[in-house]
Amino acid sequence: MSSNLSFVLNKPNDVSFEERPIPKLKSPHDVLVAINYTGICGSDVHYWVHGAIGHFVVKDPMVLGHESAGTVVEVGSGVTDLKKGDRVALEPGYPCRRCPDCLGGSYNLCHEMVFAATPPYDGTLTGFWSAPHDFCYKLPDNVSLQEGALIEPLAVAVHIVKQARVQPGNSVVVMGAGPVGLLCAAVAASFGATKIVQVDIVQSKLDFAKSFAATHTYLSQRVSAEENAKNLIASANLGKGADVVIDASGAEPSIQTSLHVVRMGGTYVQGGMGKSDINFPIMALCLKEVTARGSFRYGSGDYKLAIELVAAGKVDVKKLVNGVVAFKDAESAFKKVKEGEVIKILIAGPNEKVETELDTSVDPAKLEAAKGNTGCC
Amino acid sequence: MSSNLSFVLNKPNDVSFEERPIPKLKSPHDVLVAINYTGICGSDVHYWVHGAIGHFVVKDPMVLGHESAGTVVEVGSGVTDLKKGDRVALEPGYPCRRCPDCLGGSYNLCHEMVFAATPPYDGTLTGFWSAPHDFCYKLPDNVSLQEGALIEPLAVAVHIVKQARVQPGNSVVVMGAGPVGLLCAAVAASFGATKIVQVDIVQSKLDFAKSFAATHTYLSQRVSAEENAKNLIASANLGKGADVVIDASGAEPSIQTSLHVVRMGGTYVQGGMGKSDINFPIMALCLKEVTARGSFRYGSGDYKLAIELVAAGKVDVKKLVNGVVAFKDAESAFKKVKEGEVIKILIAGPNEKVETELDTSVDPAKLEAAKGNTGCC
Amino acid sequence: MSSNLSFVLNKPNDVSFEERPIPKLKSPHDVLVAINYTGICGSDVHYWVHGAIGHFVVKDPMVLGHESAGTVVEVGSGVTDLKKGDRVALEPGYPCRRCPDCLGGSYNLCHEMVFAATPPYDGTLTGFWSAPHDFCYKLPDNVSLQEGALIEPLAVAVHIVKQARVQPGNSVVVMGAGPVGLLCAAVAASFGATKIVQVDIVQSKLDFAKSFAATHTYLSQRVSAEENAKNLIASANLGKGADVVIDASGAEPSIQTSLHVVRMGGTYVQGGMGKSDINFPIMALCLKEVTARGSFRYGSGDYKLAIELVAAGKVDVKKLVNGVVAFKDAESAFKKVKEGEVIKILIAGPNEKVETELDTSVDPAKLEAAKGNTGCC
Amino acid sequence: MSSNLSFVLNKPNDVSFEERPIPKLKSPHDVLVAINYTGICGSDVHYWVHGAIGHFVVKDPMVLGHESAGTVVEVGSGVTDLKKGDRVALEPGYPCRRCPDCLGGSYNLCHEMVFAATPPYDGTLTGFWSAPHDFCYKLPDNVSLQEGALIEPLAVAVHIVKQARVQPGNSVVVMGAGPVGLLCAAVAASFGATKIVQVDIVQSKLDFAKSFAATHTYLSQRVSAEENAKNLIASANLGKGADVVIDASGAEPSIQTSLHVVRMGGTYVQGGMGKSDINFPIMALCLKEVTARGSFRYGSGDYKLAIELVAAGKVDVKKLVNGVVAFKDAESAFKKVKEGEVIKILIAGPNEKVETELDTSVDPAKLEAAKGNTGCC
Repeated sequence: MSSNLSFVLNKPNDVSFEERPIPKLKSPHDVLVAINYTGICGSDVHYWVHGAIGHFVVKDPMVLGHESAGTVVEVGSGVTDLKKGDRVALEPGYPCRRCPDCLGGSYNLCHEMVFAATPPYDGTLTGFWSAPHDFCYKLPDNVSLQEGALIEPLAVAVHIVKQARVQPGNSVVVMGAGPVGLLCAAVAASFGATKIVQVDIVQSKLDFAKSFAATHTYLSQRVSAEENAKNLIASANLGKGADVVIDASGAEPSIQTSLHVVRMGGTYVQGGMGKSDINFPIMALCLKEVTARGSFRYGSGDYKLAIELVAAGKVDVKKLVNGVVAFKDAESAFKKVKEGEVIKILIAGPNEKVETELDTSVDPAKLEAAKGNTGCC
Repeated sequence: MSSNLSFVLNKPNDVSFEERPIPKLKSPHDVLVAINYTGICGSDVHYWVHGAIGHFVVKDPMVLGHESAGTVVEVGSGVTDLKKGDRVALEPGYPCRRCPDCLGGSYNLCHEMVFAATPPYDGTLTGFWSAPHDFCYKLPDNVSLQEGALIEPLAVAVHIVKQARVQPGNSVVVMGAGPVGLLCAAVAASFGATKIVQVDIVQSKLDFAKSFAATHTYLSQRVSAEENAKNLIASANLGKGADVVIDASGAEPSIQTSLHVVRMGGTYVQGGMGKSDINFPIMALCLKEVTARGSFRYGSGDYKLAIELVAAGKVDVKKLVNGVVAFKDAESAFKKVKEGEVIKILIAGPNEKVETELDTSVDPAKLEAAKGNTGCC
Repeated sequence: MSSNLSFVLNKPNDVSFEERPIPKLKSPHDVLVAINYTGICGSDVHYWVHGAIGHFVVKDPMVLGHESAGTVVEVGSGVTDLKKGDRVALEPGYPCRRCPDCLGGSYNLCHEMVFAATPPYDGTLTGFWSAPHDFCYKLPDNVSLQEGALIEPLAVAVHIVKQARVQPGNSVVVMGAGPVGLLCAAVAASFGATKIVQVDIVQSKLDFAKSFAATHTYLSQRVSAEENAKNLIASANLGKGADVVIDASGAEPSIQTSLHVVRMGGTYVQGGMGKSDINFPIMALCLKEVTARGSFRYGSGDYKLAIELVAAGKVDVKKLVNGVVAFKDAESAFKKVKEGEVIKILIAGPNEKVETELDTSVDPAKLEAAKGNTGCC
Repeated sequence: MSSNLSFVLNKPNDVSFEERPIPKLKSPHDVLVAINYTGICGSDVHYWVHGAIGHFVVKDPMVLGHESAGTVVEVGSGVTDLKKGDRVALEPGYPCRRCPDCLGGSYNLCHEMVFAATPPYDGTLTGFWSAPHDFCYKLPDNVSLQEGALIEPLAVAVHIVKQARVQPGNSVVVMGAGPVGLLCAAVAASFGATKIVQVDIVQSKLDFAKSFAATHTYLSQRVSAEENAKNLIASANLGKGADVVIDASGAEPSIQTSLHVVRMGGTYVQGGMGKSDINFPIMALCLKEVTARGSFRYGSGDYKLAIELVAAGKVDVKKLVNGVVAFKDAESAFKKVKEGEVIKILIAGPNEKVETELDTSVDPAKLEAAKGNTGCC
């Protein structure tokens, strides 16, 4: 009847489709969800190409994917807030609930986290997914399942902007105009930021950013970080520097520029992943009393807020989607992301019908905007 | 009658004594203070040797010194909280009081700050000092004028520990066992930290640290930052890392180690000054969601708290003083600091009598502890 | 030539117009401003009717008014950020800048505050006003002088909403739909609140509120506070209670209801003034771990943000204005406020020409909405 | 062999001893603990006398007690941090771990909390107790089991002081010198408060407080709250008011005084329970911008910190104990608490040997101090 076909990474650049057993509920608090749509994250592509991210190494075949929305098909006996047929966004990481980080409200820092498509745990590019009910978030009527698949990257952006403590009236600079950078700009706007400067090295991405959430854009220059910062500040009229700088690029020159762009007493958040160690202007941090924070995945309240931002029309995630492909075309979708041909592409679940491989309603500007996008945040 | 002899830096390694006019009160809110004692800061020595710190360059002769306590000799008509004869600790930086940083409670970030012994402004190694009354803090009866001269470096430590948001029960690692590092450890203890690990590369300094405020010490090793951190964590039984790490050394390997020692979700504060740019483990900051903060001088409430800590017997600043010299011996005192022969040495004001050049009551352990101390924090 | 005619309260219900000397700059940091428009606050009306608010008693004749915008006509020698002709919103309270509250960033708590139209200090219903440059905020080109006169009550609302720590996605209940209550709702929306429930006892005011910023309204009932809260929560679908409740009414039943409406761990802010002592559900505060905060005037950054909210089109203060009257008609304007015939009415400066006594463009709904408005927040 | 004798409240003033089945582990994460000592809380006495607290009504027989320490006798298969023989303090409330409050780090606000000796849940005056391992805190070697039974009230005080955000150098007024008030004073000291004023209506309790943690005491007077506050401020030299006021009495006049004692911008925390509604100086809260917070039980990190404070010698909880009685004498211990004859009395577990009914080493001052103590905080 229903298929639990799964998209499995065997080793670098070697994927296959595999029919796996439909998972069982492990607890009365779990629900079973049929996957409708899944987005592709830069980390999925990185595992596909390299077989590892840092010390997370794919040793055994692993199902990919963790940006999914689906439909509830079964609920455990202890579940009262969800029922069969409910459409949900899936939060794909499950903490232990018992360590000091979990009890203290920072479950994203849990050392025993079980996270989808992070070795050795399977991901959500599959037919059915079993999860604790409190990590399955019911979508309001005016939020579609395709939008639901974008709640995950939006929650990443929500977490970054929360880490940045963006306040109403703030000026916010976002380094990088990939999916997460674009979403950070939109979330910052919803937090009341009145000046939002998106920075990238690709002009077409900046053009899209301007149509999405940025109030200003800046094409990063191949000059010293200090000079780049000085020009950026002048270009966006930032006075003595930006209140908040978010790096969603992971690129060394962007991070260096960030520290020179932020004002005295301002905040810089590292949201994008890149090299482990870089040359860093530490005295700028010290003498300007900058607060620097890392941001890792998402935590308490982030999914809820992400859904509310979409439901309230504050973040139009649909604008980022270049197309939807059938499950059988998952590998070609990965290729498109790797080649920088799309901002976001969705893969339908194995039991989902998709009539067109690529949604024809896509704005050509969006395709243009995707150029050079490497799938990293 | 009274002398306003001043200790003037003309150019690198060229100092002289100069009789200058006694300053006038500039406002009805000012007071005139006769200087009793002044400590020497690493920055004083740095100006003396190099004539500059970063973009602050000594172009004209400048009076050195900014760690002073004195006695009020005249008060302006608008001053009600101080009177002639009051003994005060002098906060040596005067902000504009009108910019957003000043109005917002962060006057240490004021762009128009006038700071003693920071070019082009003269310092406090002089006979008399005129200052706004609210930057002159009356010393309680049980705090001596010599202790008063140590309030400045203690306020630096208070500010660092506040930036670190040290909470009761925290584990705190302090990199560096110079004067500021030692004071950070003592302040952290007064904030309720229950485990305080002092780290240095000189064993004698660690021995002194153990007798001062540290509960644990760690002799830093010439291994990779990760390995050094791993050994430090094991040695002090820090579990998954320290809640707070303070770098009071400014040294590149210390900063790198700091990021590997701090726990997930912990805080690292850069308090010591060093190279502008260093190799920095940025992904450790990102993936562990570390909060990093700079600390610059001191601000609202810091002097008040520093004095209370001394008055309440929580920080015994006297322990750091190796001796007191007469004003005429100022240059020799600078030499002792430069050579690492003392932790702290005080210079008496030009109108102050000092019977012994070097206090003979000094603990030999203290002299030993000073070895290798470069006067940097 | 230019008049410095002033609107003076001699004693309760006894006002007169008086030509006073044009003020001089008291400091090189001051500017002289010609007043263009002034709004009327509930406190102005209260002094007019009662001659006192609490322990602030009008003993000598006092110029009324403190919600003003004007045009710079002279700048002191130390002023660089303003020039003749600049249009500015006037912050009407001047702190000492030297006490711990001022230095700590809470100048609104300064015990030496000199506040316009608070005895014994004169107010701004006059021709010219001398003030420190940093308390005169330049209006952007797209903000009119009439809007500028509304920055003061908007800053009150900004401060209240900041005290409430409103976060994106929050549900916010605002008790009272007077000018400050309406502005609180709009500011809360700009802070990202997604559900805003305005509460009042007058339906027409709720209808206006719905057209202004509220997403929901609730007509308060003459039942017990618990029952009123229960019905409010049900009516607005607030689940286990509101994240934030703001009382902008000062009415005892509203405050009681506030404590029963707020969720466990939520925040309630008292923004409206009323009786000194009331019957208060203290155990609700204790057992639900509610954070309650008072809000008093406005402080650091509030005027700046208020102006940005108007400039960015986030708060349409013009909607609150029922009309503009000439300076000679100031008393009739006070009567209209007292009688609850207007939400906000502006009085032109004595040198300002006003062609119509009451702006005929006023929305009849606005007039209807004003009914029952007592001029209190 | 081992007894699971339990001390059961059948209805008001009707208790009995009952042998109950030894509980089983409900999850692999649970441990079974043999109870060694249990303290008596005011709420236990209240249930015993009245059969109810607010809407919590004892309908079926309920085991009393929730302040216990014990020894691990069995661990579940998933438990790695505890082993048989470990001595532990028991946190007696178990949240759902799945609601937004739990996931957000505020599990004490969980609506599904299962709390010992709160109807309908049984308490810890029994032989064996089964609990999740993460709510059983291993005692360090230098903390005794009798001290372990006092961790619960100490955690209450830790939570109150955290809610008050006590900072180093703060002045703290504690209303009430019962067990929780005394512990609040000690915890405030460990947080760095430098002036701690204990307030009560019984002089002997104040004398004890002075020997415990208070730096000042004030005997509350039967005058108006304003006058009482004025006298308290003068008596303890609090200047413009206290930084923090904690009410650990629940008494209406104390709460009123609290609002008049706290400084502008200060914090008041309601820690004691009393009447649901009281006459409250709301305008003092509003105009002074006071932050008021409730405190309810304890949450994330509180037990851990409480144990550290005892282990580090910062809070000497033993000083509060007037004696230890055998399990069979539980009712007489309740009577002593009810009559105000003790500060704290411990009941040994049913399998624990106690040689003396009342520890003869008790300081007579302590007995004196207990007078008038009603067992409320």
